Amino acid sequence: MREKKVATHCPVGRTVLLITFAGLAGIGIGCLAMWSGIHFFHNRTSPSRATTSSPNFVIFLADDVGYGDFQVYGHPTQEWTGVDRMAKEGKRFTHFYTPVSVCTPSRTAILTGRYPVRTGVYGEDRVFIPASSGGLPRREVTIAEALKEEGYVTGMTGKWHLGINKFNSTDGYHLPMHHGFDSVKTILPFTQNWFCRQHESYIPGMSDSCFLYENDKIIEQPINLGSLTSKILKNTINFITTHKDDRFFYLVSFPQTHEDLFANPYFSGKSKRGPYGDSINEMGWSINEVLDHLVKLGIDSKTFALFLSDHGAVRRGCGEDGSNGPFRGGKLTTWEGGVRVPAVAWWPGVIEPNSVSNAVLSTLDILPTFTKLAHSEMPITSPPIDGESFEDQIVVKETVTASDGSDRPLFFYCSDLMTAVRFRNYKIHYYTSNRSGDGLVNEGHASCFFNTPERLHEYAIQQRCEHNFVKQDPPLMFNLESDIEEHIFLDPESQQYQKMLTEFTKQAHIHTMSIEDVESEIDKPILSRLKPCCDPPLCMCNYEE
Amino acid sequence: MREKKVATHCPVGRTVLLITFAGLAGIGIGCLAMWSGIHFFHNRTSPSRATTSSPNFVIFLADDVGYGDFQVYGHPTQEWTGVDRMAKEGKRFTHFYTPVSVCTPSRTAILTGRYPVRTGVYGEDRVFIPASSGGLPRREVTIAEALKEEGYVTGMTGKWHLGINKFNSTDGYHLPMHHGFDSVKTILPFTQNWFCRQHESYIPGMSDSCFLYENDKIIEQPINLGSLTSKILKNTINFITTHKDDRFFYLVSFPQTHEDLFANPYFSGKSKRGPYGDSINEMGWSINEVLDHLVKLGIDSKTFALFLSDHGAVRRGCGEDGSNGPFRGGKLTTWEGGVRVPAVAWWPGVIEPNSVSNAVLSTLDILPTFTKLAHSEMPITSPPIDGESFEDQIVVKETVTASDGSDRPLFFYCSDLMTAVRFRNYKIHYYTSNRSGDGLVNEGHASCFFNTPERLHEYAIQQRCEHNFVKQDPPLMFNLESDIEEHIFLDPESQQYQKMLTEFTKQAHIHTMSIEDVESEIDKPILSRLKPCCDPPLCMCNYEE
Repeated sequence: MREKKVATHCPVGRTVLLITFAGLAGIGIGCLAMWSGIHFFHNRTSPSRATTSSPNFVIFLADDVGYGDFQVYGHPTQEWTGVDRMAKEGKRFTHFYTPVSVCTPSRTAILTGRYPVRTGVYGEDRVFIPASSGGLPRREVTIAEALKEEGYVTGMTGKWHLGINKFNSTDGYHLPMHHGFDSVKTILPFTQNWFCRQHESYIPGMSDSCFLYENDKIIEQPINLGSLTSKILKNTINFITTHKDDRFFYLVSFPQTHEDLFANPYFSGKSKRGPYGDSINEMGWSINEVLDHLVKLGIDSKTFALFLSDHGAVRRGCGEDGSNGPFRGGKLTTWEGGVRVPAVAWWPGVIEPNSVSNAVLSTLDILPTFTKLAHSEMPITSPPIDGESFEDQIVVKETVTASDGSDRPLFFYCSDLMTAVRFRNYKIHYYTSNRSGDGLVNEGHASCFFNTPERLHEYAIQQRCEHNFVKQDPPLMFNLESDIEEHIFLDPESQQYQKMLTEFTKQAHIHTMSIEDVESEIDKPILSRLKPCCDPPLCMCNYEE
Repeated sequence: MREKKVATHCPVGRTVLLITFAGLAGIGIGCLAMWSGIHFFHNRTSPSRATTSSPNFVIFLADDVGYGDFQVYGHPTQEWTGVDRMAKEGKRFTHFYTPVSVCTPSRTAILTGRYPVRTGVYGEDRVFIPASSGGLPRREVTIAEALKEEGYVTGMTGKWHLGINKFNSTDGYHLPMHHGFDSVKTILPFTQNWFCRQHESYIPGMSDSCFLYENDKIIEQPINLGSLTSKILKNTINFITTHKDDRFFYLVSFPQTHEDLFANPYFSGKSKRGPYGDSINEMGWSINEVLDHLVKLGIDSKTFALFLSDHGAVRRGCGEDGSNGPFRGGKLTTWEGGVRVPAVAWWPGVIEPNSVSNAVLSTLDILPTFTKLAHSEMPITSPPIDGESFEDQIVVKETVTASDGSDRPLFFYCSDLMTAVRFRNYKIHYYTSNRSGDGLVNEGHASCFFNTPERLHEYAIQQRCEHNFVKQDPPLMFNLESDIEEHIFLDPESQQYQKMLTEFTKQAHIHTMSIEDVESEIDKPILSRLKPCCDPPLCMCNYEE
């Protein structure tokens, strides 16, 4: 049995909720007096106890969407979406970072609040593949588990990418149901990818990477991309409706805009921006529907919704790239284009509409923020939580806010290699990407076809840190606030460089010393017998119809 | 005497204004009945006749400011400014173009609504210098002149750069007082530039380019940059106060952010972004003060204010660059970074707050828009006005608007060389910049010192079209809506390319045929005896104190 790492304490919330959770009512009532006392101490920054107390949480998590991919982030062509609506009615963040710029570890960071190098979710391939035997270790405490301890109902739909099986092709050992998610509908345990492309015939034998699950069972292989977003939306609406009187946490994990781009026939061909814009519009539409539903149910003022991307957009110059706005580089790199993500918070009545936060934040901060807002104690962990609560950025009634968050170092990784650090206004690069996504123009490649062996090989090579990163000696240093594009490196002979180098060396040392050895999950054996296949040998089925 | 090219017709407006303009009252009253009839035909798109009738006009014109230089255009570091306020209370444009990406011709386009190649404001040096004998020809009708015909009071302050003297160093033949501007206070007939830099000693002998005028008299040589913005603001406030009961047009032509960057001590060193941000903040502050003043006087709902930049930001990788957001290139080029500008319209009660227009517009459209809103007839000109009114984008009550404006070709020039054309979603490049500002990384140059002869020579060379542009054969073509970065050129063998090439060839032919030979003003003799100098030989004075 797994060791509990979350402190046992009183669930908090309104009495009506304690009654609703019949199974928890006994504990809840017994603790009520004590809770009141704690509650007042916790909540001194909140403008209104009634509205900021233990909200529902919804995360809209996009895949590979770039900083510059929305109107509110400066895209001149992209149509207005639900994300822009969230920003108009809520708060847009300008300095929100992910510690790693590929899917698997970036999602670990969100769910655990810990650097992936602490959790074991690092490795040569950088991400889990369908035949991986590793996964997010069960010892880790996810947002879902932390909030469950507070009496929250939890669920998710969409992309997972944190492991599937461990012993055989059907055990589902690493799936979200084992990480605190009660309701798990229509998930992609791996990811949307090029094997699922709609406009080419499905390739048998490649099907092991294109499948949908319900809990731990395959329901569709390959994925019907035309109905995927509708399914994700339906699951979300149903979950919210069922739990409208509970406190809930729901993760809506979109497959958009990971290549190959897709959109259902209603959205396809409509965006001025082309297929990428269609894909954004389909995702944005479903976000808008969810917001409307929250308003219709009258629980919008009790619900904190957070949109974000897992990392920056792909930059290959292939015509399917997203936009990282003014930033250099993209996915796979630790230039700003890879690690700075669009992030928008929405909570009617609590968050100031049309506001902007320039605080330096991280996806590592989501777990501590949610548990703080849920009035939970922080999980008691001997390995530390790296994130810090940004509750103060949520409840502040100002149009533009900034914080001293940049006085906390943020570390950026490729696997277990620390490639870059942000501290105060500066960023140091010990290693930089010399391949895709580093801002090089790859003119004339109007499209990329990843089903060719050459392209797949090139892609696989790029995934590896040793092929993607080159050492910088002396390290490159930039003033990120005055040089957002990371183009003007500081003279290594200058006083400012030397002064900051000392700071960086100190911060990196403290951080590195705090990291304990933990076995790599991604480097665990890749065994073809673990590959999900609903109906061998063809691996094609649809159990929904 | 100059030939009048503006139709004589009835001034329009409220009766109170006709009384105010004593000199025009006779005509005004005589025409009142007729005006009512015309007025209804003109104004069918206006939601409210009371509010959209003949507003005051204020243009805030920035110098070298890029598309990505403000928060509302996606800059992650720049502080909130008056421009962001204008966008929050008004409308932000995403597809606003200038036909040329250097100062002199871009300003001609704004004031006349005509391609500079039609007006003679083109030439080898691309811009006027202090000793130029040419200038904006008096035969051209400026916005100021067109609106004066409608009974507007006109004025300007700040940068001119459309010619100074013709016969001697004091005749001021080309100055704004001869182009319809009644009140001309504290102007830079040339431009802010490196010779005016604050942090180095003033160099006698270079002073001929750093001077302030009042009407046609030098009042300060060199310019005291510390008080410049305050003077510009004071002039604007005074003009508006004096004419608060009139209808007025005022051009606030900022020296910011042309190199060398400057800011007064209050703003200097305050921006997280560094000197560029300080400069933006000082300009933004004064815009905010003007808006506040309009509100205080109760004439905000009668005033249409338009902020825009003359062209994109400089891109040299020197640490003093602005941001063109996601766009390629900058000043001196005809990549989007050079020709797409930030533009924000503000008119409380008429323009929908926090709205966005994606219509494809041009600085050529400002004159027709203003004259339309002023209910003026268009100037009768045998050479055509190239712009079209975008009044419909102003009065529409929608959060996001788009138009078919892209079905009109927009031509981009270096001097009289047509380098690129936008038509529908496509852009063709017949010539592209191969030097500064084309997106190349110039790493490690933390600062540029333009006072060295080498730098000045390099700069002068870059100004020349033949040194800055290379022919593309076949021409490069991009789908600008799906590929905002101009990175993925269309295959010249493709059907789409061939189809669009036919369109471009046709549009370019029609346009070129419409252009009559006109003498270059910029190539007219440069005579050192024309250089302004207040007190030879030192050319140093301050007549204000």
